[in-house]
Amino acid sequence: MNHITKPVNLKQVKITDNFWKKEITLVRDAVIPYQWKALNDQIPDAQPSYCMHNFKVAGNIVNNMTHKADYTRPVYTTNGFCVWPEDTANPDERFYGFLFQDSDFFKWVEAVAYSLQQCPDPELEKTADEAIDIVCRAQQIDGYLDTFYIINDISKRFTNLKDNHELYCFGHLTEGAVAYYEATGKDRLLTAACRYADCIAAHIGSDEGKLHGYPGHEIAEMALARLYEVTGEEKYLKLGLYFINERGRQPYFFDQEASAKDTGKEGLRYQYYQAHLPVREQTEATGHAVRAVYLYSGMADYAKLTGDESLKTACERLWDDIVLRKMYITGGIGATHLGEAFSFAYDLPNDTAYAETCASVGMVFFARRMLALSPDSKYADIMERELYNTVLSGIGLEGTSFFYVNPLETLPEACYKDERKQHVKPVRQKWFGCACCPPNLARLISSIGAYVFTETENSLFVHLYMGCCLEKNLKSGKVKVTITSEFPWQGKVQIHIDCNVSEPFTIALRIPGWCGKYKAEGTQGAVSELKQGYLYLTKIWGSDTIDLTFPMEVQVLEADERVREDIGKAALMRGPIVYCLEEADNGKELHLLKIDTDASFETIPMQIGSDSVLAIKAAGFRQKKVKSPGLYHLHTNTEYENTTLVWVPYYAWSNRGEGEMQVFTRI
Amino acid sequence: MNHITKPVNLKQVKITDNFWKKEITLVRDAVIPYQWKALNDQIPDAQPSYCMHNFKVAGNIVNNMTHKADYTRPVYTTNGFCVWPEDTANPDERFYGFLFQDSDFFKWVEAVAYSLQQCPDPELEKTADEAIDIVCRAQQIDGYLDTFYIINDISKRFTNLKDNHELYCFGHLTEGAVAYYEATGKDRLLTAACRYADCIAAHIGSDEGKLHGYPGHEIAEMALARLYEVTGEEKYLKLGLYFINERGRQPYFFDQEASAKDTGKEGLRYQYYQAHLPVREQTEATGHAVRAVYLYSGMADYAKLTGDESLKTACERLWDDIVLRKMYITGGIGATHLGEAFSFAYDLPNDTAYAETCASVGMVFFARRMLALSPDSKYADIMERELYNTVLSGIGLEGTSFFYVNPLETLPEACYKDERKQHVKPVRQKWFGCACCPPNLARLISSIGAYVFTETENSLFVHLYMGCCLEKNLKSGKVKVTITSEFPWQGKVQIHIDCNVSEPFTIALRIPGWCGKYKAEGTQGAVSELKQGYLYLTKIWGSDTIDLTFPMEVQVLEADERVREDIGKAALMRGPIVYCLEEADNGKELHLLKIDTDASFETIPMQIGSDSVLAIKAAGFRQKKVKSPGLYHLHTNTEYENTTLVWVPYYAWSNRGEGEMQVFTRI
Repeated sequence: MNHITKPVNLKQVKITDNFWKKEITLVRDAVIPYQWKALNDQIPDAQPSYCMHNFKVAGNIVNNMTHKADYTRPVYTTNGFCVWPEDTANPDERFYGFLFQDSDFFKWVEAVAYSLQQCPDPELEKTADEAIDIVCRAQQIDGYLDTFYIINDISKRFTNLKDNHELYCFGHLTEGAVAYYEATGKDRLLTAACRYADCIAAHIGSDEGKLHGYPGHEIAEMALARLYEVTGEEKYLKLGLYFINERGRQPYFFDQEASAKDTGKEGLRYQYYQAHLPVREQTEATGHAVRAVYLYSGMADYAKLTGDESLKTACERLWDDIVLRKMYITGGIGATHLGEAFSFAYDLPNDTAYAETCASVGMVFFARRMLALSPDSKYADIMERELYNTVLSGIGLEGTSFFYVNPLETLPEACYKDERKQHVKPVRQKWFGCACCPPNLARLISSIGAYVFTETENSLFVHLYMGCCLEKNLKSGKVKVTITSEFPWQGKVQIHIDCNVSEPFTIALRIPGWCGKYKAEGTQGAVSELKQGYLYLTKIWGSDTIDLTFPMEVQVLEADERVREDIGKAALMRGPIVYCLEEADNGKELHLLKIDTDASFETIPMQIGSDSVLAIKAAGFRQKKVKSPGLYHLHTNTEYENTTLVWVPYYAWSNRGEGEMQVFTRI
Repeated sequence: MNHITKPVNLKQVKITDNFWKKEITLVRDAVIPYQWKALNDQIPDAQPSYCMHNFKVAGNIVNNMTHKADYTRPVYTTNGFCVWPEDTANPDERFYGFLFQDSDFFKWVEAVAYSLQQCPDPELEKTADEAIDIVCRAQQIDGYLDTFYIINDISKRFTNLKDNHELYCFGHLTEGAVAYYEATGKDRLLTAACRYADCIAAHIGSDEGKLHGYPGHEIAEMALARLYEVTGEEKYLKLGLYFINERGRQPYFFDQEASAKDTGKEGLRYQYYQAHLPVREQTEATGHAVRAVYLYSGMADYAKLTGDESLKTACERLWDDIVLRKMYITGGIGATHLGEAFSFAYDLPNDTAYAETCASVGMVFFARRMLALSPDSKYADIMERELYNTVLSGIGLEGTSFFYVNPLETLPEACYKDERKQHVKPVRQKWFGCACCPPNLARLISSIGAYVFTETENSLFVHLYMGCCLEKNLKSGKVKVTITSEFPWQGKVQIHIDCNVSEPFTIALRIPGWCGKYKAEGTQGAVSELKQGYLYLTKIWGSDTIDLTFPMEVQVLEADERVREDIGKAALMRGPIVYCLEEADNGKELHLLKIDTDASFETIPMQIGSDSVLAIKAAGFRQKKVKSPGLYHLHTNTEYENTTLVWVPYYAWSNRGEGEMQVFTRI
């Protein structure tokens, strides 16, 4: 496979960007401490997490071996939360929370690790070390580490891979452990992850007598690839690849498990789990969107690690299916809240959208891996679209409230009164019972530096234009690359290269898909080539400054005509930012507004909360009301009054109280 | 109360109308026999009804008293269908089906009764008599008659009025019994209804020791009004009025029942049942739409029977809330499938509409009662809109397939793949497990003659223009009124009056709301007055012929701007008929089409199945596709190609196989 690059180590990158530094700081100062409290049930008026509690209880059981699973079975609420009958004995020794509660700690420790790499904090590191001790104390002698089964009934472990998230928790453990090891050099959690991986490999695999299974909720695939990369142990590559290869083969492993069978129609069975077909035969992105993009990310990892072209082709096909047929303009994926899943092609309703924050986080993972497989700017364009829109929309400007669901149109009344929209919230929520999105945001944002570049030995690809600096080793010395930019508001980027070795070196600069004509100055003397959306510049660099200009015009965009919900409507983008109308600027009944596509669209600075953003202003129309005696009236020539429309960045919506919002507006 | 009229007895009316005669014949020849087979579990490949089975089992129990409720409890499926564990003893002695399965027979016998009035059929009458014997054999000594409790556990009767439908089944028993008595003079079922009513009154009412309850699913109110009217017994009026007056009072009766409490938000509790407020204080149509309009119909009955102005005012308010804020242009009501319920004001989504056929049937009941309270053509306009659109849409042109749900827009792919639309079927279904709509259609269509007129001693109101003749008694003799019309296709109506008594008499003719200028000829010598949409003509009639012309122009209609889903769109009506576009005539992707509101709209005859209808043809536009490299592209001037749009009557949609349909189209 040609063109394979690898992500640069987060340690090499220092983020200096005004825009992202604020987000990173929010995560460090607000999200991580808040989440630590949540893990320890210290948030007043919030449903307790019980996450650390469960590890402590499991630790006692493992170490004293006094536990007997002799008490009443727990009861599960309809959303899978585990509660106990009130009269059960030993309340302090029970498991509480979701089956996958362990993963909350693992996601937290991953975010902590990235944060420590950018900004050392001995006190936070100490807290994490102590927590890791508690976690590791819960590990069984054979390496098993899942508090739900350790506490409830260890004999039942590995009996419901489809639904009970053991391998999902293992995946997050491993991601967290690798990150913490890379950040601190401390291997206690990494060792735990390796031991748990070994335990899994002892029970699951192709050998006779082992379960021929794979995860119901994917992530272990990606995680095992990282574990292989950091340890160099082939066995982890092999286990991850086994999950990839075994998935979706007939007879279905999930059918053989004790759990309830999927009774879906033949041919659609296990689509929710992306386990309806062997992965290389899958052509459509289906089912639970987060699971899907985690799987595809894992597939891309193994395509890279093993050079398997058929896996790469499958990834490309699935990528195209998402991006060409199933993605909102905001980057949101998973159009239906039923199963938090992909809907069918071009079915992208604005007001009932699911577009889970975590799915966009997962899409960033997938994009980075596709970029590593082949540096094509179409992958970086989507990565950028996700980051600046649906990912950031997931977190309030103040950093302590979150969207799980990211609709493209809201009417608050409908969120309260229409049960079809009960998943849509008009304002960000403080925390979630199923708290997957906030920690996922935390781990992505605190590691944002790892998405800016990929590299080969003698080349550096710049995918995102955020202020940062990087030191890269060449054979004969170092090169320092400094990016200065005012993204996403201005398209001017300065790249300063500081190099004192006489070795030619290529810097490949992404030309964003949203910009028509770009300008690159200061490239004298370099061999220059434009390929797959990257400007390749090769020379022996000294102290050079490249000035890039990517004009950020306001773009009026329409969806493919097959998107029924967007017909006759348009949305605005400027640079990577998708815009929306809010009630705060445009009054109620946004559906009455109409864009004048010939108007001149001006940018205006606006303060939203503590953030300075660029809003867009243009003349537009508001449909006049017709005096009608009833609900239906004879068509008269539709009249409009002139008005001024004001758009704000989609990611910043709902930071000024509750109100209507819409991305697509009539033209 | 002024202006009170009463419906004319169905026996006095003979339907000769080409349009409706076909429907009535379908019901007689296809629906009634099919349904009888269904009640007796004789439809191959259909879920058995068990309705007659249950009556037989209950009859054995009541008469032999050998039954002991000693076997395993039944299990209810998620949709409330009662099934038994396979190993249960006495399979032949069990209750099967829905809790309200008895009502299927009562609705059938009501349809039979109306059919017999129009068209005597000794064999059908014999079948009905024998079935009534089976039903009456199941009645207990104290009058109780509900097979679910008789078979399962009689000690539990009247313990869950909220959900277990005993009073609902009683209501249908009574409606059927009154109709059968009026049709045949046979009082066996009527006596059973009276005895059951007496049994209910012995258990429920204001006296100490009685349950202060009321029905969870309304209909008993209307039914008791009819029972009072046919028997003259005040006690039935009193019981019905008790239900009306007690409903929604605090403390809530439903809270006191053993069943699970409604945990909805305070202030919204029991809205689903219209039991959140005393009925006179209700201002908004809420909850399950069928229940709602059955209740409002009952309220209108008691307003008429008791002269209670506050009840009348409440009815008028609720009517306006439905008609001005919550009704589809097709007459469909109940915008959300969640709870088969009214959504909030102006929330009328086209593609996820519920618009249950039964709710439109119920709206016809409500309209007729409002007309009886005050002859205002706004009530008849809606009655007509319901009958010619959502009611008829409920039944296939061949008479043996049915829609439960009547959407205003369908994309078959979405019905199969989008779980939010799983309640929407792209083609009519053969029968339903919960078979409420087909028999409701049968009883309405076979009694359609009862909706044409209301009368006072010396006046006759003509509300619907269908071919029929009526004999009305005046003080000094008879008047015969014959209507000839080609409704709904042509607006010409001839009314022939044949009268040989010298007594002045008023005929009040509705001027349909959809017609601008009408013409009435042959009214010479009559005192003429136009009032609330009726042309009152008073004179001593002889042999007179009135020629009415109601021009049927094609009307391009828009919804109130607050209906977000219809903004920028229009629908076509001609006379009482709402039109729609179908894929069969217009190809796929109906959302790309655009109406040219300045085009000339021509009517063209079209054959759909065995029916001749008038379609509408006009020049229109189809949006051209833009070649786009991705899902979103820069706005270019939208281009359209000329096309011809063909609309068919909404009621006739989906009679030519599966395809897209839409009522509202872009303008």
